[in-house]
This record gives sequence, structure tokens and C-alpha cells, in this order.
Amino acid sequence: MAKSISFARGAPSLDIVDVEGLRAAADSAFTADPGGMTAYGTAIGYPPLREWIAERHQVAPEQVVVTNGSMQADAFLFDALVQDGDSVIVERPTYDRTLLSLRQRGADVRMVELEPDGIDVAAMERVLSAGARPKLAHIIPNFQNPAGYTLSAEKREVLLELAGNHGFTVFEDDPYVALRFEGAPLPTMLSMDQSESVVYASSFSKTVCPGIRVGYLVGPAEVIARVVKIATHTYISPNMVSQAIVHQFCLSGALERSIENVRNALRERAETLCEALSSELPEARFVKPSGGYFLWIDLPRGTDVGALFEAAAERGVLFVKGSDFVLAGAESSLRIAYSGVTPAEIEEGVKRLAEAYEQVRHAETVDAP
Amino acid sequence: MAKSISFARGAPSLDIVDVEGLRAAADSAFTADPGGMTAYGTAIGYPPLREWIAERHQVAPEQVVVTNGSMQADAFLFDALVQDGDSVIVERPTYDRTLLSLRQRGADVRMVELEPDGIDVAAMERVLSAGARPKLAHIIPNFQNPAGYTLSAEKREVLLELAGNHGFTVFEDDPYVALRFEGAPLPTMLSMDQSESVVYASSFSKTVCPGIRVGYLVGPAEVIARVVKIATHTYISPNMVSQAIVHQFCLSGALERSIENVRNALRERAETLCEALSSELPEARFVKPSGGYFLWIDLPRGTDVGALFEAAAERGVLFVKGSDFVLAGAESSLRIAYSGVTPAEIEEGVKRLAEAYEQVRHAETVDAP
Repeated sequence: MAKSISFARGAPSLDIVDVEGLRAAADSAFTADPGGMTAYGTAIGYPPLREWIAERHQVAPEQVVVTNGSMQADAFLFDALVQDGDSVIVERPTYDRTLLSLRQRGADVRMVELEPDGIDVAAMERVLSAGARPKLAHIIPNFQNPAGYTLSAEKREVLLELAGNHGFTVFEDDPYVALRFEGAPLPTMLSMDQSESVVYASSFSKTVCPGIRVGYLVGPAEVIARVVKIATHTYISPNMVSQAIVHQFCLSGALERSIENVRNALRERAETLCEALSSELPEARFVKPSGGYFLWIDLPRGTDVGALFEAAAERGVLFVKGSDFVLAGAESSLRIAYSGVTPAEIEEGVKRLAEAYEQVRHAETVDAP
Repeated sequence: MAKSISFARGAPSLDIVDVEGLRAAADSAFTADPGGMTAYGTAIGYPPLREWIAERHQVAPEQVVVTNGSMQADAFLFDALVQDGDSVIVERPTYDRTLLSLRQRGADVRMVELEPDGIDVAAMERVLSAGARPKLAHIIPNFQNPAGYTLSAEKREVLLELAGNHGFTVFEDDPYVALRFEGAPLPTMLSMDQSESVVYASSFSKTVCPGIRVGYLVGPAEVIARVVKIATHTYISPNMVSQAIVHQFCLSGALERSIENVRNALRERAETLCEALSSELPEARFVKPSGGYFLWIDLPRGTDVGALFEAAAERGVLFVKGSDFVLAGAESSLRIAYSGVTPAEIEEGVKRLAEAYEQVRHAETVDAP
């Protein structure tokens, strides 16, 4: 079989990880604060990094908790805010792990359609008017996983208004924000919030590296205090060594250089992907992403993406089926992650994907009664 | 107030942490496996470290999961094995965080008296004969926290027999095993187990440093697979950077040097503590520890350790009250951690503690009718 090409995993390739910058940051950290980074910390996270994050978001340090990756932060937040049977609004499609995490906690998950400019706020209003009393609305505002779409400034305002009027928390899950490769950045809902309606999450997985496992939450001090208490009971303190390394990486300027490097690579990969799809697989409908890792493809209605998955896998090409990101449906859709593949791999991968599509389409035609 | 001396926290002082060894291990890791340590891993942990641990315990890698510290491992194990209302046997006294973690999960916690040679197995048999059907018995076999006691070889055998006959799991929680400073090591119950009755936990917090947050579980492959599934849903993967650093620390020989260094320091601290107590506070009854971080003091019946805590704090000396480690009672007992203090601080701290004791005893005599 030909060399495997994975469009499946939302992770960076090693060439866009600043290994030398990390090595230097580790060395600096062991010099700058050997005591602080080797001792047990507390569940708030490594204090200098917590302060750095607080300053970046213009909030008090008491509004920040730094965790072992942002998935762990999500889990703590859900433990703090979501009880069995509580209603939670999520985007359709949305990140499969969030969906699973909420359903495991017994949440009544309501999916609201995601449009190219973000969640359908009119549909959300209808759900709320019909009597839904959500505790939380989970929103990935920038370069959404899996769709790659970005929430417009107007819809950010509407969401905050709905949250204020209906008394729910907007969980602004924003790991991709720094990875914008075109257009102007939009303000976070956290920064626009006047009524303590937002808890914001982000991470260094996409700007430093995933293996360092450093994520964080920013929110009302009272909510953060509850999360810190749960975190204390779970693990005493998160990883101080890796948080001190991230802190030095930020201080040294390596973070900004790394972000620039990642953005440039992603821009090139996204362009290559869109061009290859347009020429090799013209049946694919998609919105060209302006940042992040992902592109969502809708194939003609009736296309069996389950069969496409098998046919692509036979050709060594992996992707994630659209149906993984919804409760039901999305059977003619798929997610392509372009973060872990080079432009050459993208071209080759799309060529094979198009071949797989031809095979599946042909089989369907033959099978038809 | 005089310089504060803390006998409260079970953590090493910075002088017994090999910071230069850690710096070198980090540097080696970024050279040896930049891809593996910076990428998302999986919830099994960093594979080379997992294999190193498996070899050390003479088990298959599938029997090992490496986590973000062993508290997190405990939490996963309890999530996998303990349901609301399940009976769990623990030692009396025991580690306060384990007690809290079990009670938060709704476990019916039954404390069985801890003797200087380990849990009272005759009392445990009586509890079992009376109809208790525990899911788990939580045992800290070496240099127990908080008592400093070690489970005898004979009692290890009895415990395994009881576990086999009554169908419960022995959770062998063994973070201090490497810190023996006198006498011969005893076999782990894990190594003696013939019937998959043991899940073993340990960590690098006491041999590398706490801030690195690397712990692990060893047990039946089926139990470990359940823990891995819960871990995947919680955080995708634990910290790969810190686990790769620990792996290099182990490979380079730094681990063995660090353990030797820590043992020597702890031996000296324990001896200084026992001598100081004998001369300054002869009312204190204790068993001289042969390893670990802790010494348990019983003061004469009727001594108000709550009042002693206040009087000691006024003199800048901190310890943990015995009552924190039990469900009820232990009001004349306290835990002294000698891991984070120098011999000079120990001598000074015990002097102040003895003064505080005199004050409290005097007050009691005066108050008596």
C-alpha cells in the first residue's frame, strides 16, 4: 500500500513545532525558578504563567486556572456546572470529544445548526423561546472544529444578549484563535461580556505543542474557584515543569515566532487543499477556512461517506466521518484536518480521495435498482 | 515571629531535588524523541516510560498506565471500580486526600486500625466475617502516610489471601517504597499476587520531584484498559514532555543517584527528629520510621492537639492534626513530615513544639476543676 496520509488528526506536524525553542525554554526555566517548578504547586497552576495569561486577557489572576490541557479544563468546568439532566446547547456539528464528555455526564445535549458565520442564533432563539433552559452553550468561535467556520462579530453580540436574558453561561472554547492566517481578528466574547456570562478556554497545544498539555480557563472568579477546588481534589496540582517551560517560551518571544511560523504553514496547507479539492474533487462543497486546522466537506446528498471512508483507507488516506460530530445525520460529510500534512501530502491525499470517491459513486450507480 | 518551620507538607526540600539532572534529562529528551514528546500521545502514557515501568515490575506493558501524578491515577481507579454505596476498607489513620476522594464518590468507607506492622488483619477478618463485601482495600504498605509504619511480610500474605477469598481488590498505594533508609525491602503484594487481586500505584514525585507530576498504575490488563478509557475521555493524553524527561532521568542513572541522595537526607532527618523528640518532648510516643517522609506522634490521652496546633502556629511551627486522617478520634495525635526541613530546622522546630506542649498542658491543668 502507498504511504499513509492522515487527514484525521487535529494535530501539528513536527516541522511546525519549535523543538529548539522548547529546549531553550526548559533550560531557562530550570535556571529561573528551580524551586517553583519542581515542587508541588497548587491547582491554580504555575503562578507566573497564570499571571501572564491574566494580563493577556486583561483580567485578575483569580479569574484564571491553568490545567493539564484544555480537555481537562472542560471536564472540570462540566463537573462544576452541568448536572445529570441539565440542558446544554452545542453547535451542529461539534467536537466529538465535547459531545461525548457532555453525554457521559447525563446532559440533555441540544444541537443547533452551525452556519458559515457561526451558530444559527435565530434557531437558538426559537429553542429558548420554546422553553429550553440551558445551563451552558458550548461555542467554538474561531475556525471551529470540525467545520473550520468562524462566528461573526454580530452573532457574538447576539449570543451574549441571549445568555444575559436566559441566564446561561457561554462556554467560549477557543483553542485555535491565534491561528488566523487571513482577515482581522474578532474580539472574544469574554472581552465583550458585561454580565459574567462567559467562561473562556484556550490552550498552548496549537501554539507551543500538544504534548506539553497546558490549557486554561478564564471566567468569573466564583466559577474559577469552584473549578480550582475540583482540580485540587483530583490532582493536587497540574504539571509545574511543563507550565514553567511554557512560561519561559512565552517570555522569550518564542511563542510569537512559533505562532507566525504555524500560521504561514497552515495558510499554505489550506490553500493547497482548497485548490486540490477544486480541481480533483469538484463535487466537494466547502468554505475556505481563514485559520485553524480543519475543513468540512459536504458531498452530494446520498454519498455514502462510510463507504468512502473504507475506499480511502484502502488507498492509505484517513479522515473523520461527519457523522462522528453530530448526534444523527451528516452522512454525506467529512472533516479534513490539514495541520499534520505537508502540501505535497495534501495534493497526493486529495488525488487518492477523489479516486476513492469515483469508486464509491460508481458502486452506487451500479447498485441502484 | 520566628522563621516558620513546616512539619505539615509531605514534600521534599529543594536541596534533595536533582535540578541539574532534570535539566540534563530535558535536554536529552528533546534530542532523543522530539516527535514523540511534543505530539499528543495516548492515555496509556509515554510508551518508552511505560515500558521501563513494566520491566521494573516484571509485567506486560498492557498492565501499566502512566498518569499526571498518582492522585490522578487514584481518581481514575476509583471511577473505574467504586460505585456510590460500595464498601471500601482503608487504614486508620490514612492519607486525608484518599479519604476525601472516596467519600466524594459516595463510598461506604470502613477504617481498620493500623498497627506498627501494618493494618490489623484480624480486625479486618472480623469485618469481613460480619458480612462486609468491600470492593477495594486501600493499603499504603511502606512508610505509610500519615503513620510512617510498614506492612510486614506476613500481613502482606494474609491480605492477599483475604482478597482472594472475599473477592476484593487490594489497592497497593506505594509512593514511598524507594525511600527505605534501613532494613531490607519487602516484596510488593503486586509481585506476590497469584489471582489478579492487586492494583499497584506509585509515582516519581518522591524520587524525581513532585512538580513533574508523573504517577502510574500497574494491574490486571482488563482493569488498566478501563482506566485508560476513562483517562482518554478526560484528557486525551497525559503530559508527554514531563514523562519523556522522567524517562531520560531513569535511563541516565540520575534516578538511582537521586534516590540514594534522598534516602541519606531522610535518614539523617528522621534520626534528628527522633532524638530531638526523645530529649525535648518525652511525652511523645512514636515508632522510629525506617523510610519515607512521616512520623506519627501519640501524646498522652486527653492532650488537646487542636490547642497544640494553635500554640505551635503562634511559634511558627506547622504540623497536621491526627484527626485529619480519620473519620473520628485521634484527637491527641499528630503527623510530622520531616521531608521538607533540614536537621537544624527539625531541632529548632521540636524545641518550639515542646514549648507549645508545655503551654497547652499547663492551661489544661489550670482549667481542670
